[in-house]
Amino acid sequence: MQDWGAVAAKRLEIIAKASEPGPGVTRLPFGPEHEAALEIMTEWMTAAGCNVTLDAAGTLIGRREGPAGAPTLLIGSHQDSVRLGGAFDGIMGVALGCLALEALGDQTLPCSVEVLAFADEEGVRFPTALIGPRALAGTLDPGVFAMQDKAGVSLGAALTSFGGDPEGTAALARDPAQIAGYLELHIEQGPVLEAADKPLGVVTAISGIERHRVTIIGEAGHAGTVPMEMRHDALLAASDLVRGVHDMARAHGIRATVGQLDVSPNVVNAIPARVDLTIEIRAAEDPARAAMGAALGPLCARIATATATQVEIEKTYAQPAQACDAALREGLTAAIRKATGEAAPELPSGATHDASAMADLCPIAMLFVRCKGGISHNPAEYASAGDMGQAVSALAAFLSDYVPKA
Amino acid sequence: MQDWGAVAAKRLEIIAKASEPGPGVTRLPFGPEHEAALEIMTEWMTAAGCNVTLDAAGTLIGRREGPAGAPTLLIGSHQDSVRLGGAFDGIMGVALGCLALEALGDQTLPCSVEVLAFADEEGVRFPTALIGPRALAGTLDPGVFAMQDKAGVSLGAALTSFGGDPEGTAALARDPAQIAGYLELHIEQGPVLEAADKPLGVVTAISGIERHRVTIIGEAGHAGTVPMEMRHDALLAASDLVRGVHDMARAHGIRATVGQLDVSPNVVNAIPARVDLTIEIRAAEDPARAAMGAALGPLCARIATATATQVEIEKTYAQPAQACDAALREGLTAAIRKATGEAAPELPSGATHDASAMADLCPIAMLFVRCKGGISHNPAEYASAGDMGQAVSALAAFLSDYVPKA
Repeated sequence: MQDWGAVAAKRLEIIAKASEPGPGVTRLPFGPEHEAALEIMTEWMTAAGCNVTLDAAGTLIGRREGPAGAPTLLIGSHQDSVRLGGAFDGIMGVALGCLALEALGDQTLPCSVEVLAFADEEGVRFPTALIGPRALAGTLDPGVFAMQDKAGVSLGAALTSFGGDPEGTAALARDPAQIAGYLELHIEQGPVLEAADKPLGVVTAISGIERHRVTIIGEAGHAGTVPMEMRHDALLAASDLVRGVHDMARAHGIRATVGQLDVSPNVVNAIPARVDLTIEIRAAEDPARAAMGAALGPLCARIATATATQVEIEKTYAQPAQACDAALREGLTAAIRKATGEAAPELPSGATHDASAMADLCPIAMLFVRCKGGISHNPAEYASAGDMGQAVSALAAFLSDYVPKA
Repeated sequence: MQDWGAVAAKRLEIIAKASEPGPGVTRLPFGPEHEAALEIMTEWMTAAGCNVTLDAAGTLIGRREGPAGAPTLLIGSHQDSVRLGGAFDGIMGVALGCLALEALGDQTLPCSVEVLAFADEEGVRFPTALIGPRALAGTLDPGVFAMQDKAGVSLGAALTSFGGDPEGTAALARDPAQIAGYLELHIEQGPVLEAADKPLGVVTAISGIERHRVTIIGEAGHAGTVPMEMRHDALLAASDLVRGVHDMARAHGIRATVGQLDVSPNVVNAIPARVDLTIEIRAAEDPARAAMGAALGPLCARIATATATQVEIEKTYAQPAQACDAALREGLTAAIRKATGEAAPELPSGATHDASAMADLCPIAMLFVRCKGGISHNPAEYASAGDMGQAVSALAAFLSDYVPKA
């Protein structure tokens, strides 16, 4: 029997060379590296028994027909990487989807299956992302085609020169009645599966996100001349807030991060006059996120009083959670048990994925593959051949056993 | 009777125009603004009955002879400002010294008196400072003359073109036996006198300083994918340290500040991987500073354990405290009581002054004048005419009543 994990590792090693020079992988959409990747992915899809086309939004689609009248199950991920990223994020999902179909050989499938390789999920080249899945879901704003990259090339022009067609994207919207669901295989990008010593996990939901901008106004002062009890130290207030946010997230069982913090004037002998910082909250359940978001205002007010500073907080962004479909999750869990002999952990996805946009079209589900050290967006990103082989077996079992809803 | 406070305010307003263009005062050493200030200060010293000379280190000296054989009491401060600084820091001490002598008229003094206007205390133009007082104390390192400003002009060349003489500075060292002491009048640069509702204060000591550099190594991670309890968040550790340093300084009754803090990678959706920060401790008594300095290591170790990070701390600088002379302090306290009818608060100087270098030559003492909001190094820096008038009266009373040691 073929060692599909080894094949996956080899294929990912080869396609990793479709990259700008430098460490790791840098593959942005609609450039020569994307062209090179298309050629390789076309071979993968062809070997999987698919008919291959490029749609108007630059999504490479490999379709394998099922019984007449059966719906279509979509399996996708993205071909692009961040700058100096790794060889697994995104592209692994495309590779494993193809290999699962290839592993099934000429077995008759219970439905039509399409493997989708989206052009741009990371949003590195243009200040937008997810045009491929949004076009399929009918939610693509045509205004994005005017957005330009750093060289002044518009997204519309880049897509056209790549063989896409901005005006044709409106016609890409699928009929939800014909789509059974969307599955995405992706590296976890976190340490949970590794800590649990499990190769694969089933995603419960793609976390919702909210971001807050906090401005703390204290009073500048000489580090030697102002007694401690007369200070208005903006950094002391910020520090209490960082600790408070951390403790609150643990208490709520969700995730929150102060990732960005800037001090002014930021010199060794001056009491900080101002701090600007960001708070990001992510939670698989919107009410939990909302509860913590609502608790931030009172926390800031308490800290302002305690430190004699002004603390202003403003919510700048919110995106609801996307629950994964219960039936697809059950199918994945059963398939993983069949392939690995073990129960698969369930976990939320803290990151956004193509599935986030596909949720507007159809039921979604995601299968996570363990990655080393939880590291992603980095040349050191790694998933083992063994784990990828288990994922191929699980996905093949899922497809084999899948029963489309009547 | 002359309103010396009003005269001081008027004189400081005039000399503030000896400044580079822009808000507030920018008067660096050895340039045309310094030349303009010399001319004005020469008039002040002449009106005070002094014989005026410029020494080889660029210090303008106004000397009024006392009885034959009597020692010399020095009264000084600096003519220079920071960039975009105020009209009081430094120059006020020169102005009030001259006015106290002028207020005494032709009264015979108990000793010779010199008013000193040092060229450079702020260290803005060259990466050194205090060459005037160091030359008098015999502690000037001639290596500093090779240091260059941003335009590539060496300190030695700048001093020479100004009428000074680098090679002649070695001969400026005074004989301690001939020097009774050094007095400096300066704005407080802090909020203590204002909070106490007192115009003048007597300095107990110039605080010692130590600085530490702290490097916190955590682990980068996606803000959505890493559970709170699995994080190695460098900013969480830094926040606990900022709070810990603050609480420890209050417990020790001294001052400590985290003034500089830089987060990496410093983006909204990444767990901070590294923080670099500085801790500065200032205390009037060296044992108190040393005790807190020694407690920082264990504090960092506790925080490293609690946050699962590495916290490295290194002492980068230490400067001992300079106690003010008990007899001179008593004389100032008595003079302030005579001039204002009130007891003067005692307080440490958190900032370094020319007096710090003069302490290597002779006993020192400082008189602080209340400043508005504790603000200095800023165009908004302000001391009232009334408070400056009280300072002139107190210094005149001090000089009048002064009894040199036998």
